[in-house]
Amino acid sequence: MLTPLIDPTSYTAIRNRTVSLIADLEPEDLQIQTFPEASPGKWHMAHTTWFFERLILMSFMPSYRVPHPEWHLIFNSYYHSQGQLHPRNLRGILNRPLLKEVLAWRTQVDAAMLEFISQQPDTEVVKLIELGLQHEQQHQELLLMDLHLNLSAHPLLPAVKKLPTGESGKTVPLTFLTIEAWETWIGAQNDGFSFDNEHPRHRVYLHPFQIANRLITQQEFGVFIKEGGYNDPLLWLDDGWSWRMRECINRPLYWQDDLQSTYALSGTHSLDPHAPVAHISYFEADAFARWAGARLPTEAEWEHIAAHQSGIFDPNEFVESGFLTAKPAINREGLQQFFGGLWEWTSSPYTPYPGYRPPAGAVAEYNGKFMCNQMVLRGGSCLTPIAHFRISYRNFFYPHQRWMAGGIRLAQDA
Amino acid sequence: MLTPLIDPTSYTAIRNRTVSLIADLEPEDLQIQTFPEASPGKWHMAHTTWFFERLILMSFMPSYRVPHPEWHLIFNSYYHSQGQLHPRNLRGILNRPLLKEVLAWRTQVDAAMLEFISQQPDTEVVKLIELGLQHEQQHQELLLMDLHLNLSAHPLLPAVKKLPTGESGKTVPLTFLTIEAWETWIGAQNDGFSFDNEHPRHRVYLHPFQIANRLITQQEFGVFIKEGGYNDPLLWLDDGWSWRMRECINRPLYWQDDLQSTYALSGTHSLDPHAPVAHISYFEADAFARWAGARLPTEAEWEHIAAHQSGIFDPNEFVESGFLTAKPAINREGLQQFFGGLWEWTSSPYTPYPGYRPPAGAVAEYNGKFMCNQMVLRGGSCLTPIAHFRISYRNFFYPHQRWMAGGIRLAQDA
Amino acid sequence: MLTPLIDPTSYTAIRNRTVSLIADLEPEDLQIQTFPEASPGKWHMAHTTWFFERLILMSFMPSYRVPHPEWHLIFNSYYHSQGQLHPRNLRGILNRPLLKEVLAWRTQVDAAMLEFISQQPDTEVVKLIELGLQHEQQHQELLLMDLHLNLSAHPLLPAVKKLPTGESGKTVPLTFLTIEAWETWIGAQNDGFSFDNEHPRHRVYLHPFQIANRLITQQEFGVFIKEGGYNDPLLWLDDGWSWRMRECINRPLYWQDDLQSTYALSGTHSLDPHAPVAHISYFEADAFARWAGARLPTEAEWEHIAAHQSGIFDPNEFVESGFLTAKPAINREGLQQFFGGLWEWTSSPYTPYPGYRPPAGAVAEYNGKFMCNQMVLRGGSCLTPIAHFRISYRNFFYPHQRWMAGGIRLAQDA
Amino acid sequence: MLTPLIDPTSYTAIRNRTVSLIADLEPEDLQIQTFPEASPGKWHMAHTTWFFERLILMSFMPSYRVPHPEWHLIFNSYYHSQGQLHPRNLRGILNRPLLKEVLAWRTQVDAAMLEFISQQPDTEVVKLIELGLQHEQQHQELLLMDLHLNLSAHPLLPAVKKLPTGESGKTVPLTFLTIEAWETWIGAQNDGFSFDNEHPRHRVYLHPFQIANRLITQQEFGVFIKEGGYNDPLLWLDDGWSWRMRECINRPLYWQDDLQSTYALSGTHSLDPHAPVAHISYFEADAFARWAGARLPTEAEWEHIAAHQSGIFDPNEFVESGFLTAKPAINREGLQQFFGGLWEWTSSPYTPYPGYRPPAGAVAEYNGKFMCNQMVLRGGSCLTPIAHFRISYRNFFYPHQRWMAGGIRLAQDA
Repeated sequence: MLTPLIDPTSYTAIRNRTVSLIADLEPEDLQIQTFPEASPGKWHMAHTTWFFERLILMSFMPSYRVPHPEWHLIFNSYYHSQGQLHPRNLRGILNRPLLKEVLAWRTQVDAAMLEFISQQPDTEVVKLIELGLQHEQQHQELLLMDLHLNLSAHPLLPAVKKLPTGESGKTVPLTFLTIEAWETWIGAQNDGFSFDNEHPRHRVYLHPFQIANRLITQQEFGVFIKEGGYNDPLLWLDDGWSWRMRECINRPLYWQDDLQSTYALSGTHSLDPHAPVAHISYFEADAFARWAGARLPTEAEWEHIAAHQSGIFDPNEFVESGFLTAKPAINREGLQQFFGGLWEWTSSPYTPYPGYRPPAGAVAEYNGKFMCNQMVLRGGSCLTPIAHFRISYRNFFYPHQRWMAGGIRLAQDA
Repeated sequence: MLTPLIDPTSYTAIRNRTVSLIADLEPEDLQIQTFPEASPGKWHMAHTTWFFERLILMSFMPSYRVPHPEWHLIFNSYYHSQGQLHPRNLRGILNRPLLKEVLAWRTQVDAAMLEFISQQPDTEVVKLIELGLQHEQQHQELLLMDLHLNLSAHPLLPAVKKLPTGESGKTVPLTFLTIEAWETWIGAQNDGFSFDNEHPRHRVYLHPFQIANRLITQQEFGVFIKEGGYNDPLLWLDDGWSWRMRECINRPLYWQDDLQSTYALSGTHSLDPHAPVAHISYFEADAFARWAGARLPTEAEWEHIAAHQSGIFDPNEFVESGFLTAKPAINREGLQQFFGGLWEWTSSPYTPYPGYRPPAGAVAEYNGKFMCNQMVLRGGSCLTPIAHFRISYRNFFYPHQRWMAGGIRLAQDA
Repeated sequence: MLTPLIDPTSYTAIRNRTVSLIADLEPEDLQIQTFPEASPGKWHMAHTTWFFERLILMSFMPSYRVPHPEWHLIFNSYYHSQGQLHPRNLRGILNRPLLKEVLAWRTQVDAAMLEFISQQPDTEVVKLIELGLQHEQQHQELLLMDLHLNLSAHPLLPAVKKLPTGESGKTVPLTFLTIEAWETWIGAQNDGFSFDNEHPRHRVYLHPFQIANRLITQQEFGVFIKEGGYNDPLLWLDDGWSWRMRECINRPLYWQDDLQSTYALSGTHSLDPHAPVAHISYFEADAFARWAGARLPTEAEWEHIAAHQSGIFDPNEFVESGFLTAKPAINREGLQQFFGGLWEWTSSPYTPYPGYRPPAGAVAEYNGKFMCNQMVLRGGSCLTPIAHFRISYRNFFYPHQRWMAGGIRLAQDA
Repeated sequence: MLTPLIDPTSYTAIRNRTVSLIADLEPEDLQIQTFPEASPGKWHMAHTTWFFERLILMSFMPSYRVPHPEWHLIFNSYYHSQGQLHPRNLRGILNRPLLKEVLAWRTQVDAAMLEFISQQPDTEVVKLIELGLQHEQQHQELLLMDLHLNLSAHPLLPAVKKLPTGESGKTVPLTFLTIEAWETWIGAQNDGFSFDNEHPRHRVYLHPFQIANRLITQQEFGVFIKEGGYNDPLLWLDDGWSWRMRECINRPLYWQDDLQSTYALSGTHSLDPHAPVAHISYFEADAFARWAGARLPTEAEWEHIAAHQSGIFDPNEFVESGFLTAKPAINREGLQQFFGGLWEWTSSPYTPYPGYRPPAGAVAEYNGKFMCNQMVLRGGSCLTPIAHFRISYRNFFYPHQRWMAGGIRLAQDA
């Protein structure tokens, strides 16, 4: 692995970007937690700061004095090795510290971090700082996801952010590209930052398969609904059917019950038939694929395509574009919508790669302990910072979860 | 009933007092809802305003224009006759309107109300306004109760209000006054405001009984704990024992597990052995009484005493004193701590008085529909506005509830 | 109180009657527990035996040897003073002892009891035996109630008992009798067995009131349903409305969703429009009364009528008639259906009478600890043994419970 | 695939074996359902009969008359294509049909099946009958598992079956065999019966690894407990830790809290230190492996070993031996306890093999719809019929489930 380089400018740019995401929001918007899995915005501002204070400053900068030691209990997320945890589902009850106090703490910690970086720390510590910045970027995406979910239960569906409106287009027909590949390698190369769960790079067999040129559209998913897809148990995994029945699921998250409109941070809007369907669970993606006579790709299939197709990268599909929503496909041949836009559900459970070992020390809990019961998504989304993306990146969620910006790309056996 | 008099000064005074209660609090403090039964502070500010807008201005002031009609759904509490309801346990998710928007609305509504009052409305409407002000005062008490409860789950037990500290004293011995009364009347006289549930005034028999001179102290309740009161099912009502086991109850609400300190809005403080024990449920009060070889008084017994003893009223026991906590008994003979201080659990279920009828119209739901499964408390508390108190006042809570300022006065069969 | 007389013949008759109730049932019928509050039939057979073994034989007959001491844990119902308890809602998991083993134990205990009775025990012990026989009769009613409820969730609604079919009639019009009474006494006289909760007999005021001549019919309740009674929150107590919404209640228990038929132990049958509506909760009875412009009687009102009206007792309304269902009113003037038939919901919470004290010793827990959150029903039912009935008898259930044979008699303020 | 051969003798033998398993049990034992996932014994007797009646006789034998068509609703397990389902967790409420009625129905269906088999049905139908017999064998194992679980909550831990006691031995040391294999095939060959989920046979890479010579013993698992394995979150998957905390798990299922004894169908017995630890969840197996510095094998690793090692098959490790419990390892070199004894948790999620397709028709729901959230176990157990076992057999359970006879074999990266 190459030596990472952390410079004050990029540290400041990434940290400030988090703050910029809440520029037009109010303390009340960032306080509430409507769902157990969606942390309040204020908590994200604090937890990302905790990460640097706890794992860098307290461990490696002897001169640093912790201004609020009692906050550690409440802003530790899930690191048992770092002490007691406040329950995730109760983050919304933390009225104190106030938002303004959290932001003042951020400023203190950032000043200390810049001083620390200027002291040219060891490579190992620089790698931890780099992890902290990647962690910061993950939370930028989570902050937007969680804010959206937390606001969505409000009966008045408030508009809290001004967002630009994209142009729609005309959907290109759904076609499949056939891959004859038989043997490939997946996993991160050692040429830049990557998470532990992308390692080790390893050899896998691929059976011949076909991959769809684009994501499934809202219109196509509407046909699935109209033709009774939500009411036919034979289309569903057993756990999916139980979930659908228990939770009375009959449309994508955020779609309103008129099946004509959806809720965004900027308020309710008409559905765009050409835009990709988003905020569906693995269970829904899998049922749709079965209904369509297809299946979802494995993560190895997805990564193989991603690594071997050129010319399919569109930088406007990431969060820096400002849209916070995935764009429709454009009318051209070839694979589209592969990177950014929407995370794509794969049929692969999130398991360790052969020979995987979690890192030593404080960050051992970062990824490995979640390798059960979750499914892999690939490709990044419209909420992902572009610099955070990698072809080997493995995102993961439980099969019933829907609040990430996730969609459907079909595959088939060839 | 006498004609009520509503003057602009008292309207403004009562309304402003509500705002003054939150003077030192922040938007985050007033946003959170930690328990289903405890509404956020912001919601109280809005709901009391809704009451005047909905029941007075919209009904009787044709020139009034509703500035935010969509807010009615979310700030109606439980009046089915007034339209749809937002679930009580989800009031904490309402990030919008912001606190500052709610306060601006209060100002608008108050201006309209003052104009309306100046037009000399009918007696019937004046009575509704008076009800609105009594309702406002009830919510002043609820606001403090709910704020306390909502903050109490914070692992750091934040201090959010500066409160004065009272002096402690030396407890006067517990004695009992014997009442030979056999026949009495209870219920509201028609000489001022009273709620429908205090009517009709009616005759009741009283068997000879004895009533304690003061409330049970924290020290006395500590003895109950030390001697195993929470662990002996034979002391408890069956429902109380189930509750105690299910919820792992082993001390009063807000007491910390060292049994030495308690949480107030001003932070944690040492217990005061001479101060009355507060924040106990009916189940605990009943078990304590059984352990002490006594019982709780009926509401008729309580009201009979209250109506026939003079010289027991201490104006410093109400919310205007600023203490927000009940004072210790003082060293003197005779009944004490009867009014204000702490609500006193009675052994009387909250049922309609013989011949009770709810009022007609919008306020029919105000009291009557709660006459099931709850127990009556009497006497007002340190959170009650003094002008809101009456001897015939019937407060009511479920037997497991503890977040009101409620305590124990013993009685016995004579 | 008179000296009780317990003779071997009546002991045997009462104990055998319990066994006769299960004559046509199978081990599987008596094993299942479908609802937490409904014990399996086998458990009733065992618990009533436990009562005699534990409270009489083990305490007062030194020569008695307990054949199965380990069964005490599982057949104690709610007597904390008698040791550990097996949870009520898990009685259905007790495959062992087998039904045949339980019945063999009954025989052993009965033989010992008869021997013990022949030794002419003390008055105090004879009173305990009498209590045990009253307890046995209570469980005869509970056994039938629980069996009915436990079977009712079976999707095929099995018929497990042959029951006679009564003749229907023509309902007499609903009229009200006016009572001018002002002062009366209620509670048990000391001239025979009574439970502790019927004491002390005490004086009460009664305001003038009216009482209905008969119970509300199934036809009348059907009108309430058709006119939207279940859908109008203004008719309901707040707790009742929450219950009705949460549990999706829209008709009496056992009524099928065609509103034409109902489930009995003998299978499904057409509703009888003239028969009284049964298996409704207090909440439903109260809502019906409000819809009808009336109210439910208090227990003092009910007992006052019951004690002062002669000629209204019909022995065919009790369990010995074999019908297990309440008969329609007959076409005649005057009060009807007062005793037996259906328990009648009163508006009185189940509270101690003034001066009440629970008995000392093992049976202190029999009644007193349930005096919270429940409502009183009066009058006995078609499942009650006739010898178990008294005018002062207080039955009690939670306001949402419906599996007792309970119905509606209206009252009004005069 | 070879043509299956179904002869009357083997049909009768397999069907009768199911009945023989309940020979010493009583109707009550087979009625109860203590846990939602564990069906009553009676239900298994009926459901296996339903399978033949519904999928063979009703579809292919025109002369067959269904004796109890109404039973189909309650004895269909999870085949949505075959009509409505009775909820799995409510099978214990089905008092009727009685056990004796179910057994009579079995006899009727078996007579019809034997007549049908004698008519030499088509190959496709014969394959369905073969599936029905495999299904029968699966339920023989489930019947014993469910009976054990259902009885285990009884506070008296009844002994309901006489079981032989095995001899214990001296554990052979734990060693690891190194496998250099790099490329292999897994999945069923087409030379006999196999389930759809074992297909298609396909090529997989194997990285070098090591596999333990035997299963982990009860003694070894006891050391894990004593050294705090259940209290160290860093040893656990995140979902596993949540489960362990929520359910207060601190020892294997059936172990008593003295950590000295365990509950079997024959009652409580001392633990055997040399016998393999059983009834642990995937979460526990995974935590143990991490504690031991090892990991669990993948299913491909397991199958590769199983297919290439000879001499490790011991017929006494299956249900026909009558022990219903796994034997200790014996003191010899080489791999042991591979087949029968205990199912072995693998680290492989239960997913479709590449190119997998569910069968057409009624049995499409048999396996495929469960391919989510479950983990694969391999190797058969002491409750498995020996003729039901195959090397390619994939059993699957949720990672928290423990009531199958499952244990731990460790693996390591080489």
